[in-house]
Amino acid sequence: MKFDAPVPLAEIASLIHATLVGNKTASAKGINEIHVVEEGDLVFVDHPKYYDKCVNSAASFIIINKEVDVPEGKALLIVEEPFEAYLQIVSKYRPFQPSLDMVAASAVVGEGSVIMPNAYLGNNVTIGKNCVIHPNVTILDHCIIGDNVIIQSSTVIGSDAFYYNKKTNREVHYKKMTSCGRVIIQNDVEIGAGCTIDRGVSGDTIIGAGTKMDNQVHVGHDTTIGKNCLFAAQVGIAGAAVIEDEVILWGQVGISKTLTIGRGAVVNAQSGVPSSLPGGKAYFGSPAGEAREKMKEVAWIKRIPEIWEKVKNIK
Amino acid sequence: MKFDAPVPLAEIASLIHATLVGNKTASAKGINEIHVVEEGDLVFVDHPKYYDKCVNSAASFIIINKEVDVPEGKALLIVEEPFEAYLQIVSKYRPFQPSLDMVAASAVVGEGSVIMPNAYLGNNVTIGKNCVIHPNVTILDHCIIGDNVIIQSSTVIGSDAFYYNKKTNREVHYKKMTSCGRVIIQNDVEIGAGCTIDRGVSGDTIIGAGTKMDNQVHVGHDTTIGKNCLFAAQVGIAGAAVIEDEVILWGQVGISKTLTIGRGAVVNAQSGVPSSLPGGKAYFGSPAGEAREKMKEVAWIKRIPEIWEKVKNIK
Amino acid sequence: MKFDAPVPLAEIASLIHATLVGNKTASAKGINEIHVVEEGDLVFVDHPKYYDKCVNSAASFIIINKEVDVPEGKALLIVEEPFEAYLQIVSKYRPFQPSLDMVAASAVVGEGSVIMPNAYLGNNVTIGKNCVIHPNVTILDHCIIGDNVIIQSSTVIGSDAFYYNKKTNREVHYKKMTSCGRVIIQNDVEIGAGCTIDRGVSGDTIIGAGTKMDNQVHVGHDTTIGKNCLFAAQVGIAGAAVIEDEVILWGQVGISKTLTIGRGAVVNAQSGVPSSLPGGKAYFGSPAGEAREKMKEVAWIKRIPEIWEKVKNIK
Repeated sequence: MKFDAPVPLAEIASLIHATLVGNKTASAKGINEIHVVEEGDLVFVDHPKYYDKCVNSAASFIIINKEVDVPEGKALLIVEEPFEAYLQIVSKYRPFQPSLDMVAASAVVGEGSVIMPNAYLGNNVTIGKNCVIHPNVTILDHCIIGDNVIIQSSTVIGSDAFYYNKKTNREVHYKKMTSCGRVIIQNDVEIGAGCTIDRGVSGDTIIGAGTKMDNQVHVGHDTTIGKNCLFAAQVGIAGAAVIEDEVILWGQVGISKTLTIGRGAVVNAQSGVPSSLPGGKAYFGSPAGEAREKMKEVAWIKRIPEIWEKVKNIK
Repeated sequence: MKFDAPVPLAEIASLIHATLVGNKTASAKGINEIHVVEEGDLVFVDHPKYYDKCVNSAASFIIINKEVDVPEGKALLIVEEPFEAYLQIVSKYRPFQPSLDMVAASAVVGEGSVIMPNAYLGNNVTIGKNCVIHPNVTILDHCIIGDNVIIQSSTVIGSDAFYYNKKTNREVHYKKMTSCGRVIIQNDVEIGAGCTIDRGVSGDTIIGAGTKMDNQVHVGHDTTIGKNCLFAAQVGIAGAAVIEDEVILWGQVGISKTLTIGRGAVVNAQSGVPSSLPGGKAYFGSPAGEAREKMKEVAWIKRIPEIWEKVKNIK
Repeated sequence: MKFDAPVPLAEIASLIHATLVGNKTASAKGINEIHVVEEGDLVFVDHPKYYDKCVNSAASFIIINKEVDVPEGKALLIVEEPFEAYLQIVSKYRPFQPSLDMVAASAVVGEGSVIMPNAYLGNNVTIGKNCVIHPNVTILDHCIIGDNVIIQSSTVIGSDAFYYNKKTNREVHYKKMTSCGRVIIQNDVEIGAGCTIDRGVSGDTIIGAGTKMDNQVHVGHDTTIGKNCLFAAQVGIAGAAVIEDEVILWGQVGISKTLTIGRGAVVNAQSGVPSSLPGGKAYFGSPAGEAREKMKEVAWIKRIPEIWEKVKNIK
């Protein structure tokens, strides 16, 4: 998430009660998670295992729970609870101020686009040209829709990431990590009815140009989907996955988080994909393997009784 | 379902044209199915197999299609069609009188809660404090939402139970059992976008405090979900299941009806659970087994050709 | 799709810049795909493999990209791009003119039916008697609902078919085939919350009388569902399937396209059906087989280690 304008580090340090070490006079452009940080961004880290990675990432300013060495030009903001500091920053610079109009005053709708009754457009939503937004669609704050996009009824764009910090003091419970990212839908995308596309936690969920989704598809936070993909009904994709161009996912396929499906891969119906798959091949099964191999396994299973007949008298 | 005030048995007997036997002067507090009846409740039974269980349950008053012995202080209401009598009672004492306002006059919304545009709150809905009810959410009559609850767009709370009596006279057809139960959502629950939580048939569907659900989750009627559970996207839970505290269900898991998932169980993505599972373990597969065993089976299947090579010449 | 009134072929030929061959003075009653054409209809074909089938189908008028022999009384409309001609005809005679009212002026609602707040009824929608259309339901243009039908919240009736022409010039992309068909729901049907029922591409999607669907069910375009079927939650049915009477599909079942599920078949939860199944039997698995066989396979898989013990020393 980028701030509307750069924010002096001193202002942020004051907000989160941090000790500022290093470059004290800089301003931050935004706050992001480690996998999407850019120069000028804040990042936060609370586990020693990730200290090095964060300090040496593209991020310029590190919210951290211990003083460590910091490269020239960067700064540390030392606090006891970096996660809480993140929540405070998001709450201050991207506050939840829900529009109570059906179409927010700050929403922009391009020429030739049709917004049908009961469609909700939140704050700062941008809709391109020649789109059709069907009845009872919900497009939440800050989401960006390209040209020639069709979004069918009951679909939700920009729902919160399903992303919690697990706390185990006394009993297990989950603390929500506030989503401040966006959904960006490129040109010529069509999204069916009853779909849900979550926004990024602090980055963006991106649907590439020309991609078409059938009904009841779920796309998790921070997922990047390529161009001209085809997803059949009831497909589910977990968070931070990368689906390259021209991938086809047939009905009810499930894709796990933080993996990559290579360009042109085809995943047959009901398959479950736990880890990355190279492009250009067909896959099947749960857990998924190459489709030809999996169909051979289906055939071999039927032959176990025949094998048993051969071996049952062996002692 | 409890009546707004106790109803004299004589009034109910008159409504359903029943012969009243036993304690004729009592009043009923409500009507419920056998698995949730309490003292003072009506229950109905039409199959001899269940006569004993119903007559000796906590229920005080039994709508039944045959005269049987009745314990001291209880009463029988004898009718030809107990199921029809149930429908008549629900229709009279919990009639379907849909509110045609977006927020019913009888709905109560706690301090600090935000009800966004196009959210529908039915009759007698109660929303606690500091909740966010997103656009295009539907919360139907009599449902109760605690404090600090977030419900995302297109989600439906309190849809009817999927519960029918199968009739096979001449041709198969299905007669709807009217739902008169509720959904009760405890504090600190978060429910994603596009979810559907059915009300109980006559009891309640309960979501325990701190439980978090991702998008497109389905919860069937009369299901009880514990505290601090985590359900990923597209999970489906059938009717009258019991999910204990701290259970984790990953994406697209299916849970069958009237079973129990023990405390802290983890069910891996796409698994199908046909019967109860002890807590504290990880499960996988359809039908599900212990995850370690199922992953071994996946590996063994790949070795069938190797086995075949060893045995193919055995006659 | 039938035109509002018959359209002279000459008018259509002029619209799509076609050379008219054969019966030049006739009028067309409608335009349909090959599997649902009737006498008086237009059909289009662009692949030589299907020329014969289309020319000799029930269709009277064939939009085609080559001159072929045409039976007495029929006509050819010869164009370079028959698919583009189809789009032009649909755009002209069934234009997308979305109603911007919540209930279109041309929608008809039968006596005793309740349309709850935020339900959207499009142009020419017809609702029978004694229906309940719950809040936030969307029923799109031209769909027809019978008597005593219940449609629960967030459900969408008449979303577009997921149907594209794949174009591979330079890069893969998909061109939408505009849906001009309808959804027809017969009497006594109940449809749960969060369901999506796609309209036919040019024909109709039909839900037979007495059929009951739980929540989050998806039905693809041009599918025909029989009477008194029961579909549990999260079932998905692809396009142009035929589901005969009294079929039961349990939770999360997936049905592929253009196949037939025979009368009274029962498909157990999470099964995936890639091809037609005879009626009267129970099925399980992905890909599905007879349930008894599949459960035996599940048991045999568990015995592979036992087999291995017998054969591991064979060389």
